[in-house]
Parts: sequence; C-alpha cells; structure tokens
Amino acid sequence: MTIDRREFAAVVIGSLTGAVATPRASAESSAPLRVNGDRLNEHLAALSQFGKNPQGGVSRVAYSQADIEARAAAAGWMRDALLEVAIDRAGNLVGRRAGRDAGAKPIVFGSHIDSVPEGGNYDGDVGAISAIEVAHTLAERRVITTRPFEVVIWTNEEGGLYGSRAWSGQLTAEDLANVSSSGLRIEEGIRHIGGDPDRLADVRRAKGDVAAYFELHIEQGGILDAAGIDIGIVEGIVGICQWDVTVTGTPNHAGTTPMNQRHDALLAAARFVEMVNRVVVSEPGAQVGTVGRIQAWPGAPNVIPGRVSCTLELRDLDDAKIMRLYERIRSESIEIGRQNETTFEFSAIEANLSAKTDARLREVVAHAARELGLSTRLLPSGAGHDAQSIALLGPIGMIFVPSVGGISHSPREFTRPADIVNGANVLLGAVLAADEGHWR
Amino acid sequence: MTIDRREFAAVVIGSLTGAVATPRASAESSAPLRVNGDRLNEHLAALSQFGKNPQGGVSRVAYSQADIEARAAAAGWMRDALLEVAIDRAGNLVGRRAGRDAGAKPIVFGSHIDSVPEGGNYDGDVGAISAIEVAHTLAERRVITTRPFEVVIWTNEEGGLYGSRAWSGQLTAEDLANVSSSGLRIEEGIRHIGGDPDRLADVRRAKGDVAAYFELHIEQGGILDAAGIDIGIVEGIVGICQWDVTVTGTPNHAGTTPMNQRHDALLAAARFVEMVNRVVVSEPGAQVGTVGRIQAWPGAPNVIPGRVSCTLELRDLDDAKIMRLYERIRSESIEIGRQNETTFEFSAIEANLSAKTDARLREVVAHAARELGLSTRLLPSGAGHDAQSIALLGPIGMIFVPSVGGISHSPREFTRPADIVNGANVLLGAVLAADEGHWR
Repeated sequence: MTIDRREFAAVVIGSLTGAVATPRASAESSAPLRVNGDRLNEHLAALSQFGKNPQGGVSRVAYSQADIEARAAAAGWMRDALLEVAIDRAGNLVGRRAGRDAGAKPIVFGSHIDSVPEGGNYDGDVGAISAIEVAHTLAERRVITTRPFEVVIWTNEEGGLYGSRAWSGQLTAEDLANVSSSGLRIEEGIRHIGGDPDRLADVRRAKGDVAAYFELHIEQGGILDAAGIDIGIVEGIVGICQWDVTVTGTPNHAGTTPMNQRHDALLAAARFVEMVNRVVVSEPGAQVGTVGRIQAWPGAPNVIPGRVSCTLELRDLDDAKIMRLYERIRSESIEIGRQNETTFEFSAIEANLSAKTDARLREVVAHAARELGLSTRLLPSGAGHDAQSIALLGPIGMIFVPSVGGISHSPREFTRPADIVNGANVLLGAVLAADEGHWR
Repeated sequence: MTIDRREFAAVVIGSLTGAVATPRASAESSAPLRVNGDRLNEHLAALSQFGKNPQGGVSRVAYSQADIEARAAAAGWMRDALLEVAIDRAGNLVGRRAGRDAGAKPIVFGSHIDSVPEGGNYDGDVGAISAIEVAHTLAERRVITTRPFEVVIWTNEEGGLYGSRAWSGQLTAEDLANVSSSGLRIEEGIRHIGGDPDRLADVRRAKGDVAAYFELHIEQGGILDAAGIDIGIVEGIVGICQWDVTVTGTPNHAGTTPMNQRHDALLAAARFVEMVNRVVVSEPGAQVGTVGRIQAWPGAPNVIPGRVSCTLELRDLDDAKIMRLYERIRSESIEIGRQNETTFEFSAIEANLSAKTDARLREVVAHAARELGLSTRLLPSGAGHDAQSIALLGPIGMIFVPSVGGISHSPREFTRPADIVNGANVLLGAVLAADEGHWR
C-alpha cells in the first residue's frame, strides 16, 4: 500500500506538530514530479572542470580561483532555476524563492562545492547541484511552495563548516584569523569571494529561523554500497572527540637493557592501540575509535623508546557513549602503564558534540524514498556536515547516497549517476512533504 | 684457597695450549702489584674536561677539537707510562712497549675516548685510561713482560668502530665517505687527527697477529649494579640485526569507515610490537628485541593509517638464535596481517655477527678477579665494542665494571671510582696472566 505524499504529510507531520495539512494544487503537469537526471549529471560534470587535476578529481579549496569560478557557474544555474541569488556576508551563495506564505520561515537545503586538496567530484557537489536541480524542477513544474525556500551553497565546508557556522553564530575571532588551505586567512577569503567578515552578525540566524533543513550527501563510507541500499536516512552527525596521548617510559640502550628491566613507551603504546580497538568494538553500535598518528622518541632502531605521542579519536551519535568509552580507555591505560612502569597522559584536542536529525524529517525522507520504490537504511554520519551547524537553528534531515567502495576525500571517490538522481528525487520529495506539513 | 697467578697461568693456560709457563722475576717490590687508583681517577677527571658540557658529561665526538685535545693529553699519559707512542694510519693512538721475546706477537689492550654527542664520562674512558694506568704500573714496578704489549686508544668507536675495523681490514670506501658526527667525512677526520686514509693497508693486521686482546669497559646495562657484582666477565659481544618493517593497509576516513571494514596498518603494527616482545621473551636467555622507531601515514587524527614504518632490532650472542626469532616474528606477522588484511615487509638494514670471547681469556679474567677477592658474573655485551673487530685477529677477553642504574650514552652515566680501580686491577692481572701463559 502506498499513501499519497500529501496525505502522509498530513498524517505524520501534522499529527506530530498538531498542525493541519492544507491541500493545494500541486504540479501543473500530471507526470510524476521528478528531477531532470540528465541535467543534474551534466551540471555535475561541468562543475568537475573547475580545479580539475590531471590525475583525476579536483583541488578546489575554498577561496581559490577554481572555487570562485565554480561558484559563478553555480550562481548561473541557480538563476536558471529562478532563484534570487545573493552572496551573503559570510560568503555563502544563497538562492531564495518566495512561497505563498510570505511570513513563514523558510525550508533550507543545500551543501557545498569546495573540496579538500586533491579531492573528488562527489563530496558536497552531489548535494549542492541536486539542491539547485530540485529548485529548477519546482520552477519548471511551476510548483509554488507554501513556505519560501532557500538553496544554499555553503562556503568552506571542508575547512571547518565556516559558512554554516556563520549562520549559527559559532564563528569566533580566532576562527577568522585561521589560515585556510588556499593560503588566505579566513577573513581574507570571505572578503575575496564577496562576503564581509566585519558584518557576519547580519547572517546570523536565531533558533527557529529555519523551518527545516535538508542536505543530500554521499555517504563517504561503504555501508550502503556494501549492502546494496539506495538511500541512507541519517540518524545524526556523530560527535567527534580527539585527544593527544603521551606515553612516558624510560629511554635506554636497546643492547644493554634486559627485556625485564625495560620501561618501553612504545610497547605500552602498542598495547594502547590494541586496547582502543578492543574497547570500541566491545559494545554494539556504530561507534568508531582511531589512533591515526604516532611517533616514538628518540626514534632510533637501537634505543628503547622513552616517549610516544599518539592521537585518539572517538566518534558516536551518542556523546555520553563517547565519554563512557573514553573513561574505559583511560582506566585500561593505567593498567597497561602498570605492566611496564609507563604513564599515560591525555590532552583534549577537539570536542564536537553530536547533532541528531529530526525524527519527523527522518520520516519525511523515508516516505519520499518509499514512494520512489527505493530501499533505505538508517545510519549515522561519521563525517561532519554543515547540517550540524544548522541543527542549532531548526530541525535537520540528511539523505545519503552510496559511495562506491566507501572511498572519499580522494580522486577515486565515485557515486553512480543513477544513485545521485535517486538522492535528488528523495530530496525533492522531502522538501515538498516538509512544506506540505506546515509544521513550525 | 688462593693460588698464585703464575701457577694458575701454568695450569689453566699452559694446559690448554700445551705450552709451558716460564717462571721469571716478576715485580721488584714485594708489595702486591696494583694500579695507582688515585692517579687513574685523576686522569679520568682530567679527561672529563675535554668537550665538557655545562649540563654534565661531554660531547667529544671523534675528530672534533675536544677529541684532538683529549688525545694529546692521553698521548702524554702514555709517554709517562714509558710507552712508545704513535698515531697509526687509521688515527689510533698506539703505545708500545717491548717484551723479552722480540719476535712474539703482542698482547693488546685499550678502549676509546671519543663519545657520543652529549655522552658521559665513563663509556670508553674507563677502559682507555685504565689501560694506560696498567702500562704505567708495569713501568713503575719495572715489570718486563715476555711479549711486547700495545695500549691502543681506538679512534671513532662511537661512529662505528672505525679505528679497530681498520686493523681488521673491514673498512670500505663507502665507510670512508660516511659523514661523522663531527661533520667531517671519515677520511677527512682520519687525516685531521694525524692518520692517512690512503694508507690504511699499513695498519691492517692478519689473523694471529694479536696474541690476546683485553678491553675493560663499563657494562652500559644494569645487571652488575642490580646484583651487586664487582666484575662482569663478558661471554661475547652480541650479534645485532636490524630491519625496516613496512605495514601496508588502506588509508580511510576515520569517521565513515566502520570498525569491521578497516585495514588499519597501525593496529597491525601495534600487534606486531606486542608480538615481538612476546616472541623475544618466550625463550630463556639474554636475547633482546626492540622496536625503536615508528611512524604512521598519512598521520592525521581523523584518518585510518594506511601505512606504518617501524624498525625491528634483535640481539643475541647466538646468531642462529637471532635468525630463529626473526623467522618466528616473520611468520607471526603474516598471521597478524591476515586478521585485518594488512601486509608486512621486512628489509634488512644491518647485520653484525656476534663475537665470542675466548674461553681461556675468560678464565684468565675470572682468575684475576678471584685473586683480588672480587665477585664475578658471566654476561653478554649487548653493545658493540672494538673488541669485536679484534676478534678477527686473535682471542679477545672483556672485563665489565658496573654502571649505576645501567645508564649509558648520557651525562648521567656513572661508575664508582672503586669499581673502576677494581676493573683496572683485573685488567692488570689478566694481561700478566696471559703474558705468563706463553700461549699462541
């Protein structure tokens, strides 16, 4: 049994919010409302030319010439989609279209088109171009939404969600002084692309200013691809905590110090790496734990390491679980240290809280996928996204499409064109369903 | 019961070699033959001024100005000991004294006075100054040995046994082109201290050219100190084999790659470090195994390491045991790699075969210590020494004195003055006993 999207919205969203769904004339054509997949993939191919690398993929870091040219192309496609386009003070490209209810808060959707150095053609691009395509489809089919909507191409997502954090008021003076991958300081970069770092308060939005935010993105992991699932419904964006870990023992001559008289910091660090893995997989769930960097001092083949520095990163949707795992790791480290008289010190580098997606928007996404006959799976986003900033302003929903082999931040990043079209159609359905829900 | 040293030599050495001990008038004084401990420790204190560091210890790397000045002082003390002093073509300081039998092969003893950068005042110095003191004592007491003897201050021991390897013919053109800690290439350094790198063939000696070689040295480990033993009788100098180990997995996003889909090179490397420790301690014996250097790529907190490079070093007196342990480590590495689809590659950096001390000379040392009422323990030398080059030319014997806390290659290196005097007296007794043994 399939139910009509509008009916669904009335039942699911209306019932949850207490609001009443208002029936309205939807599309002028009787054909089902679908994005133009060819145009979408052509725009993606056109975008891939900006900052193209000889070995494949792109280097299109924020504020670079390639970024500026790509933004100009995207702004053109946004205008083609009958959006009113502006560069906001933070440097975000914002395309707005009015709804029937002039006073209603907007539905916002989008993603980014900046890349990491030597990145691929899908991370960000898929969601950004699909958002424009959704707007284009709505314009072509003369669908007038109740709420206004905004398509946003966030600036400098890869550098640290700078565009979206300007909206949520999280940018600090220190952030603006950071040097970006382009070589420019963030404030210089913002100015370079047409923003005004001195007037960021203008773009800041308050909690409730966004009726709903959707972002389509490639998974960047291999779960959907391995399982052959079409659409990922994102449960939330994981919290990310990182620590510097220092293991201290006693450096000594590797030839003259018997095995039972050693306080080998690297042996303790090795036990630590294994223990982190064991502790992280000991609980059910999608949490991950990584030791990504390690170095031993003095670092000679014939000297027992007296000190090791390494990192610890834990991610999970549940911040409390991160802290619980961390406490177990800390206490097991003390035990490891006791074995060979070494000590462990932890110093926090970064702590980003998790951002849950909205339960109603997850249902909206799930319903849109079901209507299209697409299989879905609920999964966390292990990577950060602009959606996590916008979660401070309103309910968020995220749609994932499969990444072949789970490869990301690499020229080998790939998502099949058909999967991208699926994702864009789910985004279209979700935006309309949320609009029809009239929930505030 | 104590037996007379000469009698002992006749029994132990004579019987082993089939030679007959020749009684002779030994010392002119009736006082027991002992080194002058005060003079010995004064010379050590004087030596510690050359290259002295404000924070303690010395930086007296071979060919440096401090090395040259210290060698000049040592040459003066050698002349005071009535030695005929020369700088050989390799840059070794050689002090010779004739014996009664002009055609006999010499007994050689000595050590080195160059240090590692920021080294201590005992490694090398104790053996070198004690050798001079033994010669001085023999001269003062008008002891004429049967064989000639040579006190040698080897050049650039710390850089890689350059002086003694010139004697054993092991120096290659590549060795001479190496850059030493002084900044000079070895050939430049040799010239700088009065040698001639073009005529190294002149110093090369043949197998049998050394009747016996003795070297007194600090233990550089903590075995004697921990056990309260006066004198270590060295069983041999360990073989040292080093490998570069590369672990290859797949680098990936630490947020989006589930724990069970990872090919984490650092997790495999951690299991390797633990396994090396387990395998090395699984057999009885004094073998040691060390992973001293490690690095992970790409080396970011949020990226699963795709590659790790580390070192493996194994040392033991028995070269066959080193290879047996290595084969076990290699085969267990394959198993570790199977667990998470990573691979291990081993590439040999260095392989120095072990050098056994001579059984008769160990007995000579043991007897000299017993005559002095000193406790002894048989132990391997985990560090390399010039004695291992000379082992190619004749029988070697080594005498260890305790290192407090086992600290070495550090300004904190320390050996008690009384222990040094004990060591020098054992060296004196051993040289005389070997001389009296008349063995060839």
